[in-house]
Amino acid sequence: MNLLDELIDALKRLPGVGQKSAQRMAFHLLERDRTGALRLADKLKAASERIGHCQRCRSFTELSLCQICANPQRDRAQICVVESVADLHALEAATGYRGTYFVLHGRLSPLDGLGPAEIGLPELMQLLAEGGTSELIVATNPTVEGEATAHYLAEIARAAQVKPTRIAHGVPVGGELEYIDRNTLAHAFGGRLPLL
Amino acid sequence: MNLLDELIDALKRLPGVGQKSAQRMAFHLLERDRTGALRLADKLKAASERIGHCQRCRSFTELSLCQICANPQRDRAQICVVESVADLHALEAATGYRGTYFVLHGRLSPLDGLGPAEIGLPELMQLLAEGGTSELIVATNPTVEGEATAHYLAEIARAAQVKPTRIAHGVPVGGELEYIDRNTLAHAFGGRLPLL
Repeated sequence: MNLLDELIDALKRLPGVGQKSAQRMAFHLLERDRTGALRLADKLKAASERIGHCQRCRSFTELSLCQICANPQRDRAQICVVESVADLHALEAATGYRGTYFVLHGRLSPLDGLGPAEIGLPELMQLLAEGGTSELIVATNPTVEGEATAHYLAEIARAAQVKPTRIAHGVPVGGELEYIDRNTLAHAFGGRLPLL
Repeated sequence: MNLLDELIDALKRLPGVGQKSAQRMAFHLLERDRTGALRLADKLKAASERIGHCQRCRSFTELSLCQICANPQRDRAQICVVESVADLHALEAATGYRGTYFVLHGRLSPLDGLGPAEIGLPELMQLLAEGGTSELIVATNPTVEGEATAHYLAEIARAAQVKPTRIAHGVPVGGELEYIDRNTLAHAFGGRLPLL
């Protein structure tokens, strides 16, 4: 196999990149942006070797504490539990949340070999046992596995005398009732709140 | 700027990759495929440093001759001129062509500073002057610049007593006349061939 095909193969490991896109990327880099290719190679190497998990919240960082946990302005009494760092970034971008996070890097999924230990629940229990936490905001995805994880997290929180809360699931803002799937609509209807 | 953001920035240099996809790629590699990330880093570095142009056809190769030019089974009497290595691969995948290629890495475009020398036409003229070529197949794109380049290439071929041909442009196979744009339809109509 020649070097060009090896490069195309390596690019195909990226999510959402198939043979065609990988070829396009390889040709683009070789024809017009070798500096960019070398820069990307550097960053991939440095990131893979040096980025680890934050000691407190398990988010990505090359230091011992991530930027959020190291920020004295963030409220450590609130901990929002998310399945992935991508979810953390989505919440950071959309909300004005000033608390901290805890990243599971997965969800309870016994069939995939993901039990409580694999998603860092012992670390979370220890964090809650240290005291000072008032609310555990459960922001796992509304999938079967995410819901199972949410129930497990709620039990952990109650055992540590911490109030568990769950982000709201219902009709998306801007969505029209007519086009919302039945599960979501049933959930939204059952979870109705008093109008103030 | 932290290492994660630097990685995301470097990934955004890839064609078709914006902020969201770059984030997704970075998180995927860090969470699930650090081996893949290191492999990609290696291949990017090796390819950027070692892949050059084939001496004969200007396609990509890490050797002095590319696989096609080095293959004694390929007919050197036919040379197909393409704008990019991507076009070369598309033709290789779709046709049973057994001749050789010449890659321009661009098209005549004076406004972008691309003159005959930039797209390798002196090398092509030398190749034709060496003799042994019977047909120059012009497969530049049917854009204004591609057509101008095609005319220039035809002159070069005629000057070297080589027959220039142009790949056919017309109604795509499977396309319906009703939905084809007017230019293509006019071209297809004007370029009609006798039914045998």
